[in-house]
Amino acid sequence: MSGRAPRRLGFRLEYDGTDFHGWQVQSGQRTVQGTLIDVLRSTFDPEATVDGASRTDAGVHARDQLAAATIAHPVAATGFVKALNARLPRDVAVRCAWEAAADFQPRFAPNGKTYIYRIYRDIAPRPLIDRQAWRLGFDLDLDAMSVAARSLIGTHDFAAFAASDAGQTSTVRTLFGIAISLDPSGVCAVTVEGSAFLKQMVRNIVGTLVEVGRGHWPVDRVAEVLDGRDRRRAGPTAPGRGLTLERVWYEAPCGDRHAP
Amino acid sequence: MSGRAPRRLGFRLEYDGTDFHGWQVQSGQRTVQGTLIDVLRSTFDPEATVDGASRTDAGVHARDQLAAATIAHPVAATGFVKALNARLPRDVAVRCAWEAAADFQPRFAPNGKTYIYRIYRDIAPRPLIDRQAWRLGFDLDLDAMSVAARSLIGTHDFAAFAASDAGQTSTVRTLFGIAISLDPSGVCAVTVEGSAFLKQMVRNIVGTLVEVGRGHWPVDRVAEVLDGRDRRRAGPTAPGRGLTLERVWYEAPCGDRHAP
Repeated sequence: MSGRAPRRLGFRLEYDGTDFHGWQVQSGQRTVQGTLIDVLRSTFDPEATVDGASRTDAGVHARDQLAAATIAHPVAATGFVKALNARLPRDVAVRCAWEAAADFQPRFAPNGKTYIYRIYRDIAPRPLIDRQAWRLGFDLDLDAMSVAARSLIGTHDFAAFAASDAGQTSTVRTLFGIAISLDPSGVCAVTVEGSAFLKQMVRNIVGTLVEVGRGHWPVDRVAEVLDGRDRRRAGPTAPGRGLTLERVWYEAPCGDRHAP
Repeated sequence: MSGRAPRRLGFRLEYDGTDFHGWQVQSGQRTVQGTLIDVLRSTFDPEATVDGASRTDAGVHARDQLAAATIAHPVAATGFVKALNARLPRDVAVRCAWEAAADFQPRFAPNGKTYIYRIYRDIAPRPLIDRQAWRLGFDLDLDAMSVAARSLIGTHDFAAFAASDAGQTSTVRTLFGIAISLDPSGVCAVTVEGSAFLKQMVRNIVGTLVEVGRGHWPVDRVAEVLDGRDRRRAGPTAPGRGLTLERVWYEAPCGDRHAP
């Protein structure tokens, strides 16, 4: 339209996934990617495109999604942040932006990602934390879950924890670590760090660890499930609402705005 | 309807105030009290009534609102909790319930209340905390705010911090304490405890302390505003979204469910 050459801007995003049908554009659904594209096209360039590092599922949040836009417009990175935040709905915001190389690919640039899955135990809902946590009506043995989680750390074939419709060519991934902690308000956080993740992998791991934590499965069962490489032997998929993409490990030139 | 004598049930509530037009029933508005009355009337008794300890404003949250219902129905307190939570929308929940004396009045029974007002400093919004915090684009001097807040502690005429349309007969109240802290994620919490509060009193106190914290007003000005008893001399009213009714001080016979 403008005759200018398209350029690449990298940016970091935070969003509350509750009212989004996930990251990826889907016809007739409200998605994070679709919302960004709409604002970019109406503001800067009718042919703008957006890519993200992680295709978060419906209901999943991001404190630090890494993304990039290709736009034919001379706006500075700071103006890009301000213009987008003035137009985006309250549940998604651009945290910072920078000039990126033309071949910058958020999906392949990062060295790893950190996800946090939050769980609380209560017989009644807690509306002030319920958008970002999974409520369970029973106690969990966090020590048993921690021991069971150890067998998942390292490089393994995670086929047992992949979404059944994912269709990856390889299901080998590396997990750097899993930590299970309890914060002062009683919310349990399962922190999972790894180089890359299969579709629904964190939610399937959490659903399986909960089977151990509630005493339905022995600790050793998690290693057996991993070895069996059969999705049907793992636990149920934990709901999207409890999952947050906490950090994408990529040192962007926009200060420390991506981390608290 | 049933011919039974009405009885009184006490209960504790948690709600996310974002999508409510405050506590109190208002024609044509979605309110917390109105939502509870609708569910109680359709479930237990078409003449049920509900009272609360605090008439929280639009957008204000409650981690622990104290309330009571008068219903002509024999449901047990535990069944009351389950039935309501099954029918209430996700942004409000009953935390516990108990049989109360016929003359139990949530508004007058408590010995005090704790409110927390949350503030974060950032040039870009943070959607994951933005429902429960006020975003400011400038730094605050929390030490100056703490010193200024000291002059408000104790029994005073708080007319300068009352909503201009409140019309109380007396504006004398007692504040037990104000604490200003910073949590690890960078959110500032102003915790205000007192025996009772005027309409918008906490929001007006916070709006005034922020004028000190940003350097617009000297520390001594807060004591002068208090002494002047003139609402027009105090700072602006901080937005409702940052305020949470954290605790109503009443030892209800339903365990420790009201506190994390």
